[in-house]
Amino acid sequence: MFNQKRIRDYGVKIGQLQTGPCNAITDVEGVTVGHVTLSEGDSQTGVTAILPHQGNIFKEKLIASSHVINGFGKTMGTIQMKELGTLETPILLTNTLAVGTAADTLTDYMLEQNPEIGRTTGTVNAVIGECNDMLLNDIRAKFVKREHVLEALHNTSSDFAEGAVGAGTGMLCYSLKGGIGSASRIMEMSHGNYTIGVLVLSNFGILSDLLIQGKAVGQELKEALLESYKEEDKGSVMIIVATDLPVSERQLNRILKRAVTGLSRTGSIITNGSGEIVIGFSTAARIPHEKPEQLLTIPQIHEEDMDTAFRAIGEATEEAVLNSLVTAHEVTGRDGNKRPAFKDLIDKFDVSLV
Amino acid sequence: MFNQKRIRDYGVKIGQLQTGPCNAITDVEGVTVGHVTLSEGDSQTGVTAILPHQGNIFKEKLIASSHVINGFGKTMGTIQMKELGTLETPILLTNTLAVGTAADTLTDYMLEQNPEIGRTTGTVNAVIGECNDMLLNDIRAKFVKREHVLEALHNTSSDFAEGAVGAGTGMLCYSLKGGIGSASRIMEMSHGNYTIGVLVLSNFGILSDLLIQGKAVGQELKEALLESYKEEDKGSVMIIVATDLPVSERQLNRILKRAVTGLSRTGSIITNGSGEIVIGFSTAARIPHEKPEQLLTIPQIHEEDMDTAFRAIGEATEEAVLNSLVTAHEVTGRDGNKRPAFKDLIDKFDVSLV
Amino acid sequence: MFNQKRIRDYGVKIGQLQTGPCNAITDVEGVTVGHVTLSEGDSQTGVTAILPHQGNIFKEKLIASSHVINGFGKTMGTIQMKELGTLETPILLTNTLAVGTAADTLTDYMLEQNPEIGRTTGTVNAVIGECNDMLLNDIRAKFVKREHVLEALHNTSSDFAEGAVGAGTGMLCYSLKGGIGSASRIMEMSHGNYTIGVLVLSNFGILSDLLIQGKAVGQELKEALLESYKEEDKGSVMIIVATDLPVSERQLNRILKRAVTGLSRTGSIITNGSGEIVIGFSTAARIPHEKPEQLLTIPQIHEEDMDTAFRAIGEATEEAVLNSLVTAHEVTGRDGNKRPAFKDLIDKFDVSLV
Amino acid sequence: MFNQKRIRDYGVKIGQLQTGPCNAITDVEGVTVGHVTLSEGDSQTGVTAILPHQGNIFKEKLIASSHVINGFGKTMGTIQMKELGTLETPILLTNTLAVGTAADTLTDYMLEQNPEIGRTTGTVNAVIGECNDMLLNDIRAKFVKREHVLEALHNTSSDFAEGAVGAGTGMLCYSLKGGIGSASRIMEMSHGNYTIGVLVLSNFGILSDLLIQGKAVGQELKEALLESYKEEDKGSVMIIVATDLPVSERQLNRILKRAVTGLSRTGSIITNGSGEIVIGFSTAARIPHEKPEQLLTIPQIHEEDMDTAFRAIGEATEEAVLNSLVTAHEVTGRDGNKRPAFKDLIDKFDVSLV
Repeated sequence: MFNQKRIRDYGVKIGQLQTGPCNAITDVEGVTVGHVTLSEGDSQTGVTAILPHQGNIFKEKLIASSHVINGFGKTMGTIQMKELGTLETPILLTNTLAVGTAADTLTDYMLEQNPEIGRTTGTVNAVIGECNDMLLNDIRAKFVKREHVLEALHNTSSDFAEGAVGAGTGMLCYSLKGGIGSASRIMEMSHGNYTIGVLVLSNFGILSDLLIQGKAVGQELKEALLESYKEEDKGSVMIIVATDLPVSERQLNRILKRAVTGLSRTGSIITNGSGEIVIGFSTAARIPHEKPEQLLTIPQIHEEDMDTAFRAIGEATEEAVLNSLVTAHEVTGRDGNKRPAFKDLIDKFDVSLV
Repeated sequence: MFNQKRIRDYGVKIGQLQTGPCNAITDVEGVTVGHVTLSEGDSQTGVTAILPHQGNIFKEKLIASSHVINGFGKTMGTIQMKELGTLETPILLTNTLAVGTAADTLTDYMLEQNPEIGRTTGTVNAVIGECNDMLLNDIRAKFVKREHVLEALHNTSSDFAEGAVGAGTGMLCYSLKGGIGSASRIMEMSHGNYTIGVLVLSNFGILSDLLIQGKAVGQELKEALLESYKEEDKGSVMIIVATDLPVSERQLNRILKRAVTGLSRTGSIITNGSGEIVIGFSTAARIPHEKPEQLLTIPQIHEEDMDTAFRAIGEATEEAVLNSLVTAHEVTGRDGNKRPAFKDLIDKFDVSLV
Repeated sequence: MFNQKRIRDYGVKIGQLQTGPCNAITDVEGVTVGHVTLSEGDSQTGVTAILPHQGNIFKEKLIASSHVINGFGKTMGTIQMKELGTLETPILLTNTLAVGTAADTLTDYMLEQNPEIGRTTGTVNAVIGECNDMLLNDIRAKFVKREHVLEALHNTSSDFAEGAVGAGTGMLCYSLKGGIGSASRIMEMSHGNYTIGVLVLSNFGILSDLLIQGKAVGQELKEALLESYKEEDKGSVMIIVATDLPVSERQLNRILKRAVTGLSRTGSIITNGSGEIVIGFSTAARIPHEKPEQLLTIPQIHEEDMDTAFRAIGEATEEAVLNSLVTAHEVTGRDGNKRPAFKDLIDKFDVSLV
Repeated sequence: MFNQKRIRDYGVKIGQLQTGPCNAITDVEGVTVGHVTLSEGDSQTGVTAILPHQGNIFKEKLIASSHVINGFGKTMGTIQMKELGTLETPILLTNTLAVGTAADTLTDYMLEQNPEIGRTTGTVNAVIGECNDMLLNDIRAKFVKREHVLEALHNTSSDFAEGAVGAGTGMLCYSLKGGIGSASRIMEMSHGNYTIGVLVLSNFGILSDLLIQGKAVGQELKEALLESYKEEDKGSVMIIVATDLPVSERQLNRILKRAVTGLSRTGSIITNGSGEIVIGFSTAARIPHEKPEQLLTIPQIHEEDMDTAFRAIGEATEEAVLNSLVTAHEVTGRDGNKRPAFKDLIDKFDVSLV
């Protein structure tokens, strides 16, 4: 993961389960992530694309689900995902006012790959998540253009940066600089080992609430920082979950609902103005767009295997949030607004995280 | 079906699809229905039990779902059904104030069959539906006792009566006597033929709203009847759906949601005080209570097969409601309250249904 | 209403309640509707804008709710509407692949009216509904541009056309030409008279299912028409509901759920591929964007007043669908695809609707 | 609060907000709690009753809502609560297999108080929550009888015991003895000060997961205890929330959803077999059973006041869980099964909680 210093490198070990090899969402086979970062002056924003597999996603859909922790948000595409239980496009993350552009461009990207859409078959359901980066980014200027969205979609990789990159460029976390973070966990079951990976776009919380393994690091930092933050949380968090665990959409939904345990353990109270939405998919089965002659057969775990997955998503979400926080660098953006990097403050005030 | 004259016998043919051999919920292999009817003076009530299969339902659960059309009702057991997607007991129908007794007795019935409940495994989720029969039945007297519930559970059959029987003994439908009705449809698909069966406990609607294939039969009857009904709808309808179609719980839920199309076509406006709840299960797969070593594999249809099921449930629900209405006999109950039989009125006023 | 011949002009009187003066959604004080129609060759599409009141909607929000009848659709903005219970923008309807453009433009329209968005306050939640007009419109060509969306928003009126106009330009209904239709009902209560208005964008159903007051007009027409339609329903319906009834968002949601009764009575089975979504708002109270010092006080009806509203929305929805069908003219579009007008067929085959 | 040593008495101060005078759910004016404790040999169970106000609850209902964190549970009464947004009975808590008896008895209690039920008005919606106490209690023996339920209902008070009492008699928490716990918070707003109170019936979690303000007290204890627990979580938690904050049912539901933040901070991963359900009500308005001539006017807060309530419920839930744990005494029950008291272990192993 790009040689960034992550939360584990500070001695913070979240939970009991083993991480995947990269401790990232891309530990789930086939998942790739691409960023476009627009960081110059008042433009502090970007796009992050998550490809759920490397084939034609429209023709080979994945079982998918979403869960709204708090719905003060403009996420697109979840109505159809809930009805049909499938994901048929990449997932895009960007700033709130760029959702229209992102949706329009992702639609075109899908049309290009699938000439039958709108001709011999129906249309396509683009999935877009967003957070509001208005403090550091001139969000009204709408810097995200079609070419940025396409670039993010076309340049994904299993290795990707965290922190103030892509959609995370202008985002805040616990009043400090936040953005993209990721983590993963291995789930050992009697029928095999599976991986769950989480990618967050963090943009929520106030400094005084920040907890690291229960340690009130945020309070400590707040006292150290003589400047006072206007601690109003207008933020959000998008939580993208990938797994190769064989699950029905109901089972997947149950797993997604547990992301909130990890979030809560970093100190979040899930504020009113925060759009907190979890979107997840399983790569274990592919649902064909075209109806086959025969029945589908879908492998799935027994409900009693769930607890391992519940533990895994909580741990991975908690760690992904902390990774988004600790990897982000300081950003000065719109009107000179500035948010410090957690990592700089750790050094400056000699904060111990453990 | 007990030689009762049903709506088809009046020349009314609902929809396009073929019915199953009995045109009843028991056309789904393994499903049986039992009634206990308490009809004497102020006691006009009862119990209806639906067994989803003939094995140990706790140990071999079925994929199940429920849908609330209107939630002014006291149905038990749907929270767990939604979470786990399974049914693990028979389904009981009775009057509103007998839900506690029914739940308690069904629990004991399950405990007896499964000595491990509450010892080496957890508890059991009883599913009970209800309607309010207070006009004809002295509901406050709580006539339904433990022995009645057990009798209904122990005496189920693939052949069963409709109308003013079992839980339907004291129920109304469109201000006339209503109660139990059933119907079924065959669904032809490329991979086989399947059956969907519906059983309703009807207790809703006002006479002037009754439609039979769009014909305003209720208005006509209302004018013919010189007596004026106090047409306030305090009713409900329970809709139980069985199928052998291989579906996920999400797919089954989509099917259950379409029951409302049939209901609407009989004239219902789904009033405020009406608890209208659909509960369904599929017999196509059995989910073991005990976790196996290996993954489960669940057969399911492709989403494009859905339309046949959607048509089937609408038709079967519409016909089941009309069967409940046309098979019920006149009942005089609490305080001499009386509701006429639709069949008697048809004869008396020479009403043509087609 | 533009001197178009509507379903009542054919002698079809739906339901029991009185209509508002125009029998349209704009009977609700303050509601206006604007269309942009793109009808030339392969371009058979457009935009319809509904303004919920004539003030600044962002600053004075309305209590709002939505209900998904079937979620095979790409509607935007309902997550936040559900969480906060309010509507803060006009509602746009357009074709499926134009949702991105519509969202982006509506956002800009809101930004222009509200300079504080993205500066001193958060962002804005655009609400967009859609149906797929791919048979008559070259939907892949994306004819809907920013200027069309703005034109629809800027040219709304209390008088508006129905049928093949605005977002309805290329839509189908029961295999014939459909599109925009509207109707309204008056609700008499002890504390005053209120209005409910419905506007539909119809794009669903197959000819053989069409019912008019239970009369199988679709079957009759299908036999009369020698040409055979490929009767596959890939359609959708958007149902927009306005009322001045004082309701909480929960109460409004209960009302919206009853739209399906009217829809069902026109013959719909709510097919798999059909995005059927109801979005509604009440003009009875305005929720300020800025928090006041004091508590809000929200007037609302008692639950027992609900039945009148339930009857009203069912009737208005049924009539709005039929109005969309009977007002639409024949359209020839993409690749010469053509859909006849219902009104022409009525004349040609001398069909009686009553 | 009965002179029990509570978590604050150990120096553990949860959160930032002030507690109410008793730091209990009964700090909300009008709320009272009653316990019946059955603790003898194999019978380790009981009933807890919560009265939401001291008037006739059926005639003067309260705005209410519920939220399912995990639905592996048999809670009754939430369907109607969701539809109508009101609570019309006391809330009962008991063991899982006593829900039928509790429902039946609560119904009779309501019938007695309201002779019009089932005569001139409809029926009544009893609300019952449950957890499974099968380890310490012979749950199959069904010790809870009608008289116990009535006793709990008739002997409520604003002062009540916590720990292994009432419904909590046989419950576990983080593999130790758990049961009833409570806490409250004051919410300061521009229009007044309000109280939120939480009562939990704790029966979830495994020892190694227990966190107290982030401190891994559970791990520490697990190592200290030489005996090994079979750490399988079959538990549940019922969370009852009372407030005098003026809220709509949507707003109340948003508050209830945040209980999970407090739960998570005690270490819960929300396991598969755990029924975790939140039920809440607001005493700020009374909704009359009988429809008045005029509109209702409901006071409610602006959405921006929500964050204080969100913080309050998280803190109160976290503290209520810890109070249930720290006040419970050791219990030996069915077949000699025993669960130690946390307070005894703290002393024995000299565990520091801060």
